[in-house]
Amino acid sequence: MRPSHRHADELRIVRITRNFTCHAEGSVLVEFGATRVLCTASIDESVPPFLRGKGRGWVTAEYGMLPRSTHTRSAREAAKGKQSGRTQEIQRLIGRSLRAVVDLAALGERQIIVDCDVLQADGGTRTAAITGACVAVHDAIAKLIAAGKLAASPMRDFVAAVSVGIHKGVPVLDLDYAEDSDCDTDMNVVMTGAGGFVEVQGTAEGTPFTRKELDALLALAEGGIRQLFAAQRAAIAEQ
Amino acid sequence: MRPSHRHADELRIVRITRNFTCHAEGSVLVEFGATRVLCTASIDESVPPFLRGKGRGWVTAEYGMLPRSTHTRSAREAAKGKQSGRTQEIQRLIGRSLRAVVDLAALGERQIIVDCDVLQADGGTRTAAITGACVAVHDAIAKLIAAGKLAASPMRDFVAAVSVGIHKGVPVLDLDYAEDSDCDTDMNVVMTGAGGFVEVQGTAEGTPFTRKELDALLALAEGGIRQLFAAQRAAIAEQ
Amino acid sequence: MRPSHRHADELRIVRITRNFTCHAEGSVLVEFGATRVLCTASIDESVPPFLRGKGRGWVTAEYGMLPRSTHTRSAREAAKGKQSGRTQEIQRLIGRSLRAVVDLAALGERQIIVDCDVLQADGGTRTAAITGACVAVHDAIAKLIAAGKLAASPMRDFVAAVSVGIHKGVPVLDLDYAEDSDCDTDMNVVMTGAGGFVEVQGTAEGTPFTRKELDALLALAEGGIRQLFAAQRAAIAEQ
Amino acid sequence: MRPSHRHADELRIVRITRNFTCHAEGSVLVEFGATRVLCTASIDESVPPFLRGKGRGWVTAEYGMLPRSTHTRSAREAAKGKQSGRTQEIQRLIGRSLRAVVDLAALGERQIIVDCDVLQADGGTRTAAITGACVAVHDAIAKLIAAGKLAASPMRDFVAAVSVGIHKGVPVLDLDYAEDSDCDTDMNVVMTGAGGFVEVQGTAEGTPFTRKELDALLALAEGGIRQLFAAQRAAIAEQ
Amino acid sequence: MRPSHRHADELRIVRITRNFTCHAEGSVLVEFGATRVLCTASIDESVPPFLRGKGRGWVTAEYGMLPRSTHTRSAREAAKGKQSGRTQEIQRLIGRSLRAVVDLAALGERQIIVDCDVLQADGGTRTAAITGACVAVHDAIAKLIAAGKLAASPMRDFVAAVSVGIHKGVPVLDLDYAEDSDCDTDMNVVMTGAGGFVEVQGTAEGTPFTRKELDALLALAEGGIRQLFAAQRAAIAEQ
Amino acid sequence: MRPSHRHADELRIVRITRNFTCHAEGSVLVEFGATRVLCTASIDESVPPFLRGKGRGWVTAEYGMLPRSTHTRSAREAAKGKQSGRTQEIQRLIGRSLRAVVDLAALGERQIIVDCDVLQADGGTRTAAITGACVAVHDAIAKLIAAGKLAASPMRDFVAAVSVGIHKGVPVLDLDYAEDSDCDTDMNVVMTGAGGFVEVQGTAEGTPFTRKELDALLALAEGGIRQLFAAQRAAIAEQ
Repeated sequence: MRPSHRHADELRIVRITRNFTCHAEGSVLVEFGATRVLCTASIDESVPPFLRGKGRGWVTAEYGMLPRSTHTRSAREAAKGKQSGRTQEIQRLIGRSLRAVVDLAALGERQIIVDCDVLQADGGTRTAAITGACVAVHDAIAKLIAAGKLAASPMRDFVAAVSVGIHKGVPVLDLDYAEDSDCDTDMNVVMTGAGGFVEVQGTAEGTPFTRKELDALLALAEGGIRQLFAAQRAAIAEQ
Repeated sequence: MRPSHRHADELRIVRITRNFTCHAEGSVLVEFGATRVLCTASIDESVPPFLRGKGRGWVTAEYGMLPRSTHTRSAREAAKGKQSGRTQEIQRLIGRSLRAVVDLAALGERQIIVDCDVLQADGGTRTAAITGACVAVHDAIAKLIAAGKLAASPMRDFVAAVSVGIHKGVPVLDLDYAEDSDCDTDMNVVMTGAGGFVEVQGTAEGTPFTRKELDALLALAEGGIRQLFAAQRAAIAEQ
Repeated sequence: MRPSHRHADELRIVRITRNFTCHAEGSVLVEFGATRVLCTASIDESVPPFLRGKGRGWVTAEYGMLPRSTHTRSAREAAKGKQSGRTQEIQRLIGRSLRAVVDLAALGERQIIVDCDVLQADGGTRTAAITGACVAVHDAIAKLIAAGKLAASPMRDFVAAVSVGIHKGVPVLDLDYAEDSDCDTDMNVVMTGAGGFVEVQGTAEGTPFTRKELDALLALAEGGIRQLFAAQRAAIAEQ
Repeated sequence: MRPSHRHADELRIVRITRNFTCHAEGSVLVEFGATRVLCTASIDESVPPFLRGKGRGWVTAEYGMLPRSTHTRSAREAAKGKQSGRTQEIQRLIGRSLRAVVDLAALGERQIIVDCDVLQADGGTRTAAITGACVAVHDAIAKLIAAGKLAASPMRDFVAAVSVGIHKGVPVLDLDYAEDSDCDTDMNVVMTGAGGFVEVQGTAEGTPFTRKELDALLALAEGGIRQLFAAQRAAIAEQ
Repeated sequence: MRPSHRHADELRIVRITRNFTCHAEGSVLVEFGATRVLCTASIDESVPPFLRGKGRGWVTAEYGMLPRSTHTRSAREAAKGKQSGRTQEIQRLIGRSLRAVVDLAALGERQIIVDCDVLQADGGTRTAAITGACVAVHDAIAKLIAAGKLAASPMRDFVAAVSVGIHKGVPVLDLDYAEDSDCDTDMNVVMTGAGGFVEVQGTAEGTPFTRKELDALLALAEGGIRQLFAAQRAAIAEQ
Repeated sequence: MRPSHRHADELRIVRITRNFTCHAEGSVLVEFGATRVLCTASIDESVPPFLRGKGRGWVTAEYGMLPRSTHTRSAREAAKGKQSGRTQEIQRLIGRSLRAVVDLAALGERQIIVDCDVLQADGGTRTAAITGACVAVHDAIAKLIAAGKLAASPMRDFVAAVSVGIHKGVPVLDLDYAEDSDCDTDMNVVMTGAGGFVEVQGTAEGTPFTRKELDALLALAEGGIRQLFAAQRAAIAEQ
């Protein structure tokens, strides 16, 4: 039995709220159960130095946790003066995942900067962030199209992510904090709507995992991500 | 006529939502119109080094703006590796304001760390933060009492804050961003429920202000803050 | 009785020594009793990025304390690798105060950088710094005029500052360290020669202050600042 | 045809040179073709703060590239004042991989710090580092046993790693720089001698990868890592 | 002819003013012509971690230049967030020079921290700093003796320093800025009262220097430093 | 008797291995006994800002020690976020020494960046680095000539360095770690092939040194450096 009484292949309740704040071109609050992440997508009509004059765009992401989004307070990274290795890993993962579904040449020489800030953490913040950021990027691009700056969307597909893991010997979908802090193997899977893998990151915290377990985890993840695409489509269909 | 069509002495709609997030001992979303600040109060059973072994407690605050809480995206302070002078000024102000109403000896050798994070900015983020943080501290202290760690509350009074300014020659209450970015004089006033001043910070951005204007601004501020105390009391009365 | 045996409305002895060092365009040693601050004004024929090409100038300030300007040694900020929140607050205040009396358009696309370095501290370093820096800026502008780079002075007025506070229940003028470290309310007031307020920053360290106390402090400050303008004028008249 | 004319399932020439430098308890130069990484393991008879007094040990890793280990010079991280996100990701990966095969309780309250410094880079520096570091940790532990500080080795198994990827549509083993900078999918696989997976990190740089491709890559990796274990064993058997 | 019309073996006018500021245990303004450095010596009744519990003391130094002590303004190191390589070289040199004449065991487990801050620079700031700091340390130790904390002085000798160089082919003593910025070889020499060398640091900026030139420079330095000892003794004899 | 049983005027075995790594334009492993330093010279077809458009080139150096190049592990400077004062002193010394023998005007508007990374330390790392870097710069310039970018070499001479010191009262050449950590006076001498001095840096760690000792040390250094030039020439003659 999972701590949350969910079935092994059951996602937490997923909510995607668009236009959560008013200034960003895309602003999405994504909730995977008690995990809540605010994802904003900002259009920046310039590109990083390494892309200047090449006619291609860029999508990048930054990630942060509010100090008391967690059970006990974590030190504020701005006050410590640097971002942790974990923060940097996560924001690089989000950026790569989003770039996998955006045609950067078609985006033109501009940049979409995604900020994923965790308001409340209960496991799976990076996978929720990717799933919500995809919708925020969609909305920001819609603004570019509405403003006549782009004729067609450079988004080639959707992207979503979920965590899976082996908890007390059982492969389970969408780990919450109680499971995440007590599991042997933890895997984050990022996929596109067409069913391709963008990232597979599996880590054995304790006992190494077998090939068979890996297969079971991938199957769980595929099922969960299919539901996340439905949630993204439903959110976009509204309004 | 103010850009928002408010009367000169009219606050924006103020909302105080308690228990906005689940982990912090006190968690308040405060809204002054479109300005939204999440204020959490965390109990830390230790004190900063300069207070160790003295039997007294401490209340401190940190402040941050999410990168896209503003009209155009601001760089993330954690990524830049330092907090701006403005951020430091504001968090010092919030901390001093809260300490003015907490009996630090009665709090015991523990610390309340308040985090004020701006989700959406439309002027007056520091005054909203002080007003919301007061309620968050109240709730955190209530948890200490409920847990039997304190017999009585060390809060001696409430504290609230509002901005006032001279906009197009007219003293007005509770400036929003449109007024704030176009005013001659801007003043932040922090008061206690008993009617004492904790902070008065007036700055002439353009023409210096006269003593008469100063008096008019203080009168406006006193009236506005009285309404904020009512909003704090109403929020606390709800349970 | 004040620790210094001064009357409540009595300034410390104020000395303003021009040309204290030889390289800066303006170089003033200002003394408020035992507080000694070296204020230099440097002309920089460029402006910060946000002003480039706009035809307007800028005045900015930096502040520092020598490590042993204080009773006990403070760590060197350059060695710690960052400026404290207090330092940043003070240098922002000095910059704003000076900009209030300089016509930035008339200054042309150049910058005056003021450095206020405390050689010896005995309370009131920021107010001494503003008072001395005003004369240093005057002298630097005089060099620009003498060099034919400006036809007329862009200084519209003088600016000076003093601290006031409530010490053992009595409002007093120009607090020294002994009073400053033992007072309930501390206020810094910055005014122009024409009698307008540029900044009013009052803080209750202990008991909040009343409106009546605020009025008494402002009256004391106005009287003190009037004497500071006389000292500035006398210094400039020399030589 | 691969740029190096290797078969798809062919490793580069692997060399493991022990005692490459004289001060470290374990010092290994590992070469995967032209990639050369110096891995040292240092015994530290203390542990990080979060483990103090718990009777358990720790294994951690740091990673760096000499500025001209690469085709064009990269800025020195010590001079820039911070480690890149990539560096942090890699050193966290190395540390986790090594901890997977060391019984931290049996190690006792001490720490093994592994430094992996790239002398020459030609792709696969992180997988070479893990493979070499495993031998360095082995040698450092042997010194602890020889010194009578440990009765038996806390190493439960060996660990090795290799990269695999899809280059011009073909799954290949052990990518060199020419392949790495021109491949669609890149995967790093870390396994234990017993055949379990410690880490699987696959990333689509361009087109997402299919489940079938993932399976092919995992099979290649398993074959390659088996050869790496043989190389480790051979190195340890010498002398 | 030297730019200053001095003879080749002529020092600038040297002034040593004790008790220049009031808080430090030793406070000396040293002037070598237009070069003016404030040297304070602070007693700290603790020692750095590497000396704790060893019964020995320490003498260390920090160095800084006020931003406009120079012809054109230099960026403030505290604002840049780090000390330059030049600053660090100089403060390490000052510290080593002072430790050469203090018996650290006899000082007891306490530390003397010397701050050398350049108010006005005209070449030779590091040699002036060493010469002035020696007197400041003397005065700080005298306070320890007067307070009964030391029975006898742990200073074994005096230390002083001067620069020499080859300017337009001629070896000259005590370079000012005009010479320093236009010389081929520059050497700083630190000696003790007994005539021993503590530091000799010669650098060829252009043409390498010959052994004969080196000998000439050392002879000039010895003559100059002998006069500096006289100035130190005279300063200490006063009052 | 020296700890290494060498004669007082005997160098350690010196080895200079060219093309130690493959990417850098010049790559030299230099060994002074057990001290091993990897020196790479990288051509950069740009110059630092202060030289842009002046038609002159630049030679600069950076220095680092691998964390476990030393007897006990030193913290990694990249992880600490700053380079120590010692590191900065050494890299400035290496850069100055190399510039002394390169005609910067003849080099053209390009830069040679030298990286000296210590793989194994046993005293004398900075003098070994200078000696090896000279050969690396030679090789990098040879590549420029071979590529037709320079018609003739801008190197005017060779440069080499050695340490000398007074160990147990005896002047000795080329100190290893055992001597370096137990000597009274330590001097680093940098000379050109023509016999001129580029740098002389002598420091008394304990008792100040006399003029006679200084002369003895310089004589030893000259003899040693003459042998280093022979080693450099022999290395370049090979291949």
